[in-house]
Parts: sequence; C-alpha cells; structure tokens
Amino acid sequence: ADKKPVPVLFWLSGLTCTEENFTTKAGAYKRAAELSLAIIAPDTSPRGDDVPDEEGFNIGKGAGFYLNATQSPWNKHYRMEDYITKDLPQLISAQFPNIDLNRAGIFGHSMGGHGALTLFLRHRKLYKSVSAFAPIVAPSMVPWGTKAFSTYLGSDKISWLEYDACHLIEQIGDNSDMPHILVDQGDADSFMVEQLKPELLKDVCAKTNTPLTFRLQNGYDHSYFFIQSFIEDHLNHHAKILEKS
Amino acid sequence: ADKKPVPVLFWLSGLTCTEENFTTKAGAYKRAAELSLAIIAPDTSPRGDDVPDEEGFNIGKGAGFYLNATQSPWNKHYRMEDYITKDLPQLISAQFPNIDLNRAGIFGHSMGGHGALTLFLRHRKLYKSVSAFAPIVAPSMVPWGTKAFSTYLGSDKISWLEYDACHLIEQIGDNSDMPHILVDQGDADSFMVEQLKPELLKDVCAKTNTPLTFRLQNGYDHSYFFIQSFIEDHLNHHAKILEKS
Repeated sequence: ADKKPVPVLFWLSGLTCTEENFTTKAGAYKRAAELSLAIIAPDTSPRGDDVPDEEGFNIGKGAGFYLNATQSPWNKHYRMEDYITKDLPQLISAQFPNIDLNRAGIFGHSMGGHGALTLFLRHRKLYKSVSAFAPIVAPSMVPWGTKAFSTYLGSDKISWLEYDACHLIEQIGDNSDMPHILVDQGDADSFMVEQLKPELLKDVCAKTNTPLTFRLQNGYDHSYFFIQSFIEDHLNHHAKILEKS
Repeated sequence: ADKKPVPVLFWLSGLTCTEENFTTKAGAYKRAAELSLAIIAPDTSPRGDDVPDEEGFNIGKGAGFYLNATQSPWNKHYRMEDYITKDLPQLISAQFPNIDLNRAGIFGHSMGGHGALTLFLRHRKLYKSVSAFAPIVAPSMVPWGTKAFSTYLGSDKISWLEYDACHLIEQIGDNSDMPHILVDQGDADSFMVEQLKPELLKDVCAKTNTPLTFRLQNGYDHSYFFIQSFIEDHLNHHAKILEKS
C-alpha cells in the first residue's frame, strides 16, 4: 500500500469475538501480504458502559449480528450494518487512502459468516467477493438467529427476512451472474445441525443458479484452528475475483 | 500419528508467555499437519501459588529460562531443563506412543530461542535439529540474562556459561558436523541491540565452522506476527533434517 492502491477484505467475526480473534488466531497475514490484500477486522458489536447488554452469549455485546436494530433499547447503538457499510469505509478512506474500496470483498465466521453473506447480498455495489466459514445461513429459522432477531428487530418476522441469507438469495431469483461464493464447513462442528444448517444454503443456491462452492471439511470443528487451516484458500478466492474487478 | 510414528518438535516460548502463545498465534498447524510433525508447546516456567515469583517480567513465573536453578528459593521448582528434557519426554512416551522421540527437534523464540539453542547444545542426543526466532544468544552478557542467571544460578559467573549458547558453541570447538542452525531475526526488533546481539552468534559460528543460516528480516519486530510470517520455513527446516535421521 506504500506503492499503489490495494484491494481490501472485511472480516466479520462470530459470537463472543472482538477484533482480536481474527488478528491473533487466523494466521492470515503472511498470505494476505503476498497477495497485497488489506484486511479490516472490526469488533462484533458496539461496546461501552452505556451500551445495553444481556446475560448469555448470543445477545448484546459480542453479538451484534451485523444488522440495524429497530427495537428499544437496542436501536440506539446496535447499528452494525451502518457501522460496517458506512462508518468504517469513511474512516478507512480518510485514514488509508491507498486502500481501494472499489475492490472490496467480505468474509466471516459463524455469526460473521451470516454478516458477510447478508451484507454482500444487501450491498452488492460495495462488495465484489464473498466467502464464509461455518456461517449461520438461515438465522430466521434457527435458535441463535430467532433470539437475536426477535430482540433486535421485534416480533414481525417479515422484517427478519431482510437479514436472512437464504431468503435474500431466493428473493433475488436467478443469480447466475453473481460472483462465486466459497463456504467451508467442518463436519465435526457441534453447531452445524441445529444452528448453521448448511443444507439450506446448498438447496437455495442450486434452486437459483447461484454459484456456490461448498466444502465439507472432514474432522474440523467450529474453532479458529479450522479457520487457520483454510484461510489461505479464502484469501486466494477473494484475490482472484478482486484482481479482475 | 494414527497411522505411523511421527517426528516431534518442541517449541519454547519467550518471556511472559504460557503454552497458549504459540498454540493460538503462530499459525503453525496447517504446515505441521502437511509435514506430519507433532508439536509440543510447554509453558515457560513452573506455575502455582507455592511457586516463588518476583515483580517484573524477566524473573519468576513466565521466565524460567529453561535451566535448573541452584539458588534458594528457586531451586525447588525452577528446574525447566529437567522438565523439558526428562519429565516431558516421559509423559509424551506414555501418552502418545506414536510420537517418535528419536526424531525430535527443538525451536523457540527470544528466551525460548535461548532455551532451544542451549538445550540442543547440552543434549545433543535428544535433539536432531534446531532453529530460533530472535534468540537471546549470549545471556551471560546481556541484562535479561545476567539478571536471570544471578538469581537462579548465583554470583559465580562460571556456572552461567553452561547456559550460554555462544559459549557452548565455542567450547565444543569445530562444529562442522553439527546439523544446520536456522535463525531469523527482525531488524525492527527493539530488543535486538541490547538483549539479543545476534552478531555474537554469527561471529562464534563463523569461528567454529558451525553451520548457521542467519536471516535478518527487513521490518519485522519481536512479535508473533514475525513468527507467523516465517514459521513455515522453520517447520520445513526441521522436517528436512528429521526425515533423514
């Protein structure tokens, strides 16, 4: 970036994470440097003493779900969609002029995989490439998602669908011109069956001609060791798309 | 290791570290798995409420210096050389029969680079390969080392030399039959000039025909991001030597 503008990836982490999880545990920077990719790894929720929170690990701090909350008291601070898609790009433009936001991709893990897929689908002009590790693909149909959405968005389930990747893919219709989506999922992931339901993503992508490479990885769980094992493939995936864009 | 015996590397971490630093931050496991290398990453000191400690970060817990202390009250618990070279191999033999301790290498960072070099030189039958990131190469001549050695080993400086890598290399004499030593050092490492003094290692290796590859890495500091950037080279280095042994 000292010499010329570089493309950028936004990494969105999962439940309970901060900006540190990816930074310290993903082992991404060697390959990212080789590919001249900048990586932005923001926090997963608003923080601070005046920010509402709740007991448990899937609502409140560390669990922003990358949406703009509409329900009190959450709607004042929990505006992670705006933070990721508006505030953060402005800050990056001002601070890092050689980060080229016209060549941006987005990826993430678990709740952050949900964030990556939904923000990609909702802001197609902002992101040219997308991938995910063990994403929540249909939050309106699983316990983590329904708890978060009823809290942040209220009881009207129609409003939930705007943040549900499977619904968004189906709603768009024929997606054969969409950039290729890469998803890795460990088959020893204890959250797969109840919370992640990758079969729903596979089904809707097949139905809508959405280009998806879904890889079920033998023996891998939900941890950052899983991410660390396949992060280079994801960086290569994004670099290949972004260098053409 | 489910199918056949595998070689093993012992990783020794630096001041303030626990067994977690390498495990979470080094990004080593993908390449280690590809090479069928087991990695043992022990803690850097004894732990527990009954273990003596001292204020500051370079004596006591997190700062065992991989030696057997002779001075009270340290000599009861601070026996890290025995722990690494005797207790731990026994435990590994009992728990992991497919780890082949006859094909063992040792490597480490900073204080752990000192540990790797000195334990390799003091226990030539135990370790077939060695490497280090930003090691303390002459502890008897730098502030971290002289403070630790005077505390753990007492005021007789002759006893210090047994744990000083540069002295051990010089003492052995002609080392041209020694396995190749790989050392990486960042040139933006704020500890290099006062504490690490890599020029002393280069000088003594040249003088004794000790095969050393010393790489001064442009722009890297003392952190695990430095380690993460070159860990694959070190794993390759060890694997190449161990597969022949």
